Amino acid sequence: MDAKPFNVGVDVGGTNIKFCLTNEEGTILSRHSIRTAAKAGSFALIQSILDNIELVLQRADTTLSMVNSIGVGVPGTTDARRGIVVFAPNIHMVNCEIVKAIRAVYEVPVYVAQDTRAAAWGEYMAGAGRGLASIAIVTLGTGIGCGMVIDGKIFHGALNSAGEFGHQIVAIDGNQCNCGRRGCLEAHAGGPAIVREAIESIPGIIDLLGKSADAVSVEDVFELARCGNREARRIADDVVKYVGVGLVNLINIVSPELVSLGGGICNAPPELLLKPLVEFVRSRAYPPISETIQVCRSPLRDDAPLIGAALLHKERSTYAAMERN
Amino acid sequence: MDAKPFNVGVDVGGTNIKFCLTNEEGTILSRHSIRTAAKAGSFALIQSILDNIELVLQRADTTLSMVNSIGVGVPGTTDARRGIVVFAPNIHMVNCEIVKAIRAVYEVPVYVAQDTRAAAWGEYMAGAGRGLASIAIVTLGTGIGCGMVIDGKIFHGALNSAGEFGHQIVAIDGNQCNCGRRGCLEAHAGGPAIVREAIESIPGIIDLLGKSADAVSVEDVFELARCGNREARRIADDVVKYVGVGLVNLINIVSPELVSLGGGICNAPPELLLKPLVEFVRSRAYPPISETIQVCRSPLRDDAPLIGAALLHKERSTYAAMERN
Repeated sequence: MDAKPFNVGVDVGGTNIKFCLTNEEGTILSRHSIRTAAKAGSFALIQSILDNIELVLQRADTTLSMVNSIGVGVPGTTDARRGIVVFAPNIHMVNCEIVKAIRAVYEVPVYVAQDTRAAAWGEYMAGAGRGLASIAIVTLGTGIGCGMVIDGKIFHGALNSAGEFGHQIVAIDGNQCNCGRRGCLEAHAGGPAIVREAIESIPGIIDLLGKSADAVSVEDVFELARCGNREARRIADDVVKYVGVGLVNLINIVSPELVSLGGGICNAPPELLLKPLVEFVRSRAYPPISETIQVCRSPLRDDAPLIGAALLHKERSTYAAMERN
Repeated sequence: MDAKPFNVGVDVGGTNIKFCLTNEEGTILSRHSIRTAAKAGSFALIQSILDNIELVLQRADTTLSMVNSIGVGVPGTTDARRGIVVFAPNIHMVNCEIVKAIRAVYEVPVYVAQDTRAAAWGEYMAGAGRGLASIAIVTLGTGIGCGMVIDGKIFHGALNSAGEFGHQIVAIDGNQCNCGRRGCLEAHAGGPAIVREAIESIPGIIDLLGKSADAVSVEDVFELARCGNREARRIADDVVKYVGVGLVNLINIVSPELVSLGGGICNAPPELLLKPLVEFVRSRAYPPISETIQVCRSPLRDDAPLIGAALLHKERSTYAAMERN
C-alpha cells in the first residue's frame, strides 16, 4: 500500500468552497462544503480553507501523514507554475501566494489552478477524457468558461489567459457583457442573460411562474420551454445557437477529441440543450472534425474541478518545475 | 563552419510551387518558382519537386552534401510525424508518402507540414515571432487559414486538424461555404466572397473598373474603397468586422502572444485593413489579453511558409520521433 494514498481537493467558488479527499484515481472518499466568506478578504478566506482541510481529514478519520498532495481550483487567473492567484475578483484575491500560505501549515506539495483548468484536468484524469490526449470542458453557468488539456497537459496559454471561451463574439453588435465588451457568448447565453431575456420577452412570466422577477431562474425558463411556451422555446433555441457557435469555433480552432459540458445550465432537459447542441456541432463544425468530435455532458457533473484539483499533482508539465523551487 | 550549412524549403501551392535554399537562420540564399501541374497527378507533381530541388542546388552552386534537410509545406492535412500528406485536394494528394518519395532520391532528413503550420514555424523562427513562445499566423487569401506555434511547438491538434480558423461561424445564417457549412469566416471574407459581394452590390462596378466581371480582384475592391466608393468601403468594413471577430475568438481561446497576418488580402491599404483590424482587436478582445496581444503584418510576407518549411528540422517535438523510424 502506498504510504500516502490520499489527496485533498479544494474547489473555491464565489458562493461555496468544496473540499474532498480522494484516492490516487480521483474517487471521492469524503467531502464537505462551506459558504464562501469572500467579503471577509483573502486572509480570512485562506484561513477558512486551512481550517476545512483539517476538517476533511478528520471526517475521513485520517491525518496529514497519509496525504500525498493538496490541490486548489480558483475562479480567476492563476500563475500555476508560481503557485499564485493573479486576479480572482469574485474571491477578492490579487497576486495572492496561496500555495505558500497553505504550505506554511500543511507540509505537503500544494498546487493551484484556474477552476476551469482543474475541471478539464479532472475530466481528463477521471471522467470522459480518460484515454484521450486533448479535451476541453465547457461550463455553462452564470459565467461561461472553458478549460483545456492538450497533449496530456493543462493548456494555460501565453500570460495564463487561454480559454476565455465565454468572451467569443457571437453577435457582432450584441449584448453588453460584464467584461466591458459587446456580443460575447456569455452576454447571450450565460445564466443572467437567459433570465433577463425571459423576463423581457415572455409575456406574463411572473404570473406563469408565480414568483417575483428576481426569483426567476434558468431552470424556470427551460421548464417553460419544455411545457411549450413559445417565447421560452425561442430563448432555449437561441442558447443552443449561441453556445453551438462557440463550440464550433473552439472545435475548429483547437481540434480536441472531446468537449464535455458542465455547469448549472446543463441541468436543462437534454432534448432542449444537449441533444440539439450535439446536432448543431455535427452539422456545423468543419466536416472532417464534425464526424469525430465527441460532445457529452460531463459524467463528473459539478465535481470535475474538485476531482481535478485533487489530482493536480499528476500534471507534471506544469508543476514539476515548481517543486524544484 | 558547419559541414552542412544549407536547407531546402519547398512551398507547394495550388498555383505555384516555390523552392528555396536557406542558411540555418532561414535567410533565403537562392529561390525559384514553377507552376503547379496538379492535374498531371501526384506522381508527376512529386517528380517536378524532385527535379526542382536539384535545380535550386545547381543555381546556388552547391550540392546535396551541403544540405542539412529538406522541408515541404503542402496545402492540406498532413500527418507530419509519419511524413504523409493525408488529404490535399488542390494538389490531388491522398495518403501520399511524400517524405519517403523524396528521401528515395535525396538521402537527407525530409520533413512535411501543412503550409499554414510551416508558415507559423517560419514566423516563429525567423519572423515576428522570434523570442516569443506562442504565436499564430493567419493567412487571408482565397482561403482563410491559420497556423499556430504553442510553447515552441507546431500545434497540430488531435487528428492533425487544428487551426480551421477560416471555418469559424461569424454569421449564424450566413453565406454558403465551400466546406459545405454556412456562415464560415472564409465564406464572408475570403477573396472570392469579397469579389462576389462587390459585383453584386457596387453599382456599375464593371464600368468603374473597365474590366469584365470575372477579372475583378480583391485589390480592385479595396482600391474602389480607398477612392471613396461607398459600397466598396462598406465591403472593406465588413471584411474587417468578420476577420476581426475571427481574430478575437482565436485570441480569447488560444491566447497567443502574437498574431501575424499574411496572404494576398493583406496587400490592401493598411488604413482599410490592418489598422482597423488592430483597433477591432484592441477594443473587442477580452480586456487583459487585448492590451498585450500583438497583431502585425508578417514581415516575411509570402515567404513565411517557404522559410518555415526550410527550418522544419528545428521543430524537434514533431519530427524527432520520425527520425527514429
